[in-house]
Amino acid sequence: MPRCVITRRVHFSAAHRLWNPSFSDAENAGVFGVCNNPNYHGHNYDLDISVEGEIDPATGYVMDVQRLKQIATECVVSHLDHKNLNVDVPWFAGLNPTAENIAVVCWRVLQPAVRPATLKRIRLWETDRNYVDYDGT
Amino acid sequence: MPRCVITRRVHFSAAHRLWNPSFSDAENAGVFGVCNNPNYHGHNYDLDISVEGEIDPATGYVMDVQRLKQIATECVVSHLDHKNLNVDVPWFAGLNPTAENIAVVCWRVLQPAVRPATLKRIRLWETDRNYVDYDGT
Amino acid sequence: MPRCVITRRVHFSAAHRLWNPSFSDAENAGVFGVCNNPNYHGHNYDLDISVEGEIDPATGYVMDVQRLKQIATECVVSHLDHKNLNVDVPWFAGLNPTAENIAVVCWRVLQPAVRPATLKRIRLWETDRNYVDYDGT
Amino acid sequence: MPRCVITRRVHFSAAHRLWNPSFSDAENAGVFGVCNNPNYHGHNYDLDISVEGEIDPATGYVMDVQRLKQIATECVVSHLDHKNLNVDVPWFAGLNPTAENIAVVCWRVLQPAVRPATLKRIRLWETDRNYVDYDGT
Amino acid sequence: MPRCVITRRVHFSAAHRLWNPSFSDAENAGVFGVCNNPNYHGHNYDLDISVEGEIDPATGYVMDVQRLKQIATECVVSHLDHKNLNVDVPWFAGLNPTAENIAVVCWRVLQPAVRPATLKRIRLWETDRNYVDYDGT
Amino acid sequence: MPRCVITRRVHFSAAHRLWNPSFSDAENAGVFGVCNNPNYHGHNYDLDISVEGEIDPATGYVMDVQRLKQIATECVVSHLDHKNLNVDVPWFAGLNPTAENIAVVCWRVLQPAVRPATLKRIRLWETDRNYVDYDGT
Repeated sequence: MPRCVITRRVHFSAAHRLWNPSFSDAENAGVFGVCNNPNYHGHNYDLDISVEGEIDPATGYVMDVQRLKQIATECVVSHLDHKNLNVDVPWFAGLNPTAENIAVVCWRVLQPAVRPATLKRIRLWETDRNYVDYDGT
Repeated sequence: MPRCVITRRVHFSAAHRLWNPSFSDAENAGVFGVCNNPNYHGHNYDLDISVEGEIDPATGYVMDVQRLKQIATECVVSHLDHKNLNVDVPWFAGLNPTAENIAVVCWRVLQPAVRPATLKRIRLWETDRNYVDYDGT
Repeated sequence: MPRCVITRRVHFSAAHRLWNPSFSDAENAGVFGVCNNPNYHGHNYDLDISVEGEIDPATGYVMDVQRLKQIATECVVSHLDHKNLNVDVPWFAGLNPTAENIAVVCWRVLQPAVRPATLKRIRLWETDRNYVDYDGT
Repeated sequence: MPRCVITRRVHFSAAHRLWNPSFSDAENAGVFGVCNNPNYHGHNYDLDISVEGEIDPATGYVMDVQRLKQIATECVVSHLDHKNLNVDVPWFAGLNPTAENIAVVCWRVLQPAVRPATLKRIRLWETDRNYVDYDGT
Repeated sequence: MPRCVITRRVHFSAAHRLWNPSFSDAENAGVFGVCNNPNYHGHNYDLDISVEGEIDPATGYVMDVQRLKQIATECVVSHLDHKNLNVDVPWFAGLNPTAENIAVVCWRVLQPAVRPATLKRIRLWETDRNYVDYDGT
Repeated sequence: MPRCVITRRVHFSAAHRLWNPSFSDAENAGVFGVCNNPNYHGHNYDLDISVEGEIDPATGYVMDVQRLKQIATECVVSHLDHKNLNVDVPWFAGLNPTAENIAVVCWRVLQPAVRPATLKRIRLWETDRNYVDYDGT
């Protein structure tokens, strides 16, 4: 059977602050600029979740995209939407919530959740001009 | 001379929390739901600023859109971008930073700044599914 | 208090066929072209629902946009999404399901449902190149 | 019968230069900045054409949107697409091809062409951050 | 010479129904949900067609993108646009018209048609939140 | 450490003409069609610049996306924005400014500039329906 990649986009809105507690205030300001605001700022994030597999001849699906949406909602969106990533989300204890790290964290919760399908790629949009791709490597 | 409306889009990313300090916690949670998170959440905001006027026969411009971008940057974006609207922005002292109130506040700073042109409308996008229009009424 | 217009976008996917049963087949083909296919075709529709009102000083809302989304889901999306407009939706008995008529029908169900707020405008996108505005006139 | 506004988007790509031949080189550079490049620059323009009228009870159309597309193609796109607005298009002889003036020129050719329907508004996007509205006033 | 991938987007609007005739009605409803509506629903599909090759030093083209558009129109769009995929399109006789299967079918007609260029990838958007990639594997 | 790809989008507006000086006028017209207009036409170009690397554990960044924006502005946008690619830009002396060749040229200036990070891919959008990918091969 042919193999395809299906992608579902979900979104969440969150606050965050970029900083490294082992940096001085001046270093944090220099490295992270306006993103270092101690009072936080925020974004609308879009997350594109791509899953690969053979097309099931009985259904014509790699995976029901509504099921993929449910998994994404339960495993990611319910944890991150309308949250402060630094304060409310244990996944970022000791981990700076950059777009790169958010993408890696989303991969780690989604990769087992989509089984037996194969998670192929996570694309996280922080704005409509910046995004990060992660494929588990 | 013909009269036109020109519009420039600018954007900013900010954190906020919706609440009314005179409400109980339960009332705040009931009215504002997930937007009431005391640790804040955030959005990428797009702001469409529309200015009306006659076309200047010498330039073909109602107003130089680069000048409108500068005004928007100085008067709005520099005050709101990568900020916590509740904590960092005096405009929202005693004012809940809903999309409606953000639009009104932006109108009030932009309306005098674009003179002698006429501010026609402010459209504030909080997500790509929600926006607010305000025209000074 | 200032008056604003808030807009919420919802979407639905539906099949339809354009035709007038009092036309001959040749007339239907001539007037409606490929949209006259007796086996139907379909679209992803986006519906922008705009509601006007004063900003409530206690909440900063004209209307909770989540409440507007609920109303839209119950009154419109649940009736039209994944439906055949000609066959499954009684609103189009005797009414050709053009974008114009879909917009008018959505207005008629939404206008009482959003009270005491005031429905200001319906914008129905049939494709990303075509849309219809209706304001109750 | 209800009255609606239908809108069709068309696009064209063109080169232009902004300048006033009665200005000195320094004045042109000061007023028009990078848009004054004597060797031209260019844009992808999107033009949203809005027509108002009663819904025809026999068709459910204000106007067949395919007919509106044809009119736009013949009256506007065929004259402007892949053209140099300053050099190739007589409409801009003695008229600076700003977004404002392009919108007015498009209105003047489209307004009689859409009759008996009524041209309601022209929206010209020069980039995805700038647009001009003209309604014949 | 450098090798590039060029992509052209085309679109079509179609009705379809998802079902497996060997399933019971209950199974079809359970597996395909609202997509199983026997009266059909529909979508605006966008199809991104990617072709790989060396840049021709005489033209600077991998392939004239207007030629690619023509091939897409003749081989795909003319067969699918404003059609009922289940009823009007022989390619889906015995094949459930899921996004996955539509992508595979489009690949099979486009792969020989773009020769001597190499078809690299098909991306089919069913909504702006769901898409399928197929690369012939 | 995990490896990610980060992407930043920048844009520029430019005029160009497609032609081969060794072709006859008829050949140029035949091969390049409306793009051969000797008076030029133009586009809004979007350029997506993708850089790959390990996530720095001290910052959570592959590379500061603001630094990537600066590099793109200095190395590409300042050379191409509001320019005539054929006349103003030495990179296209003897090189037809097709989307393919623009992508290759951008790669060649960006690849050394982003070091020690690794340039992964350039995607150049000429319109919202056409783009070119180049990865240095």
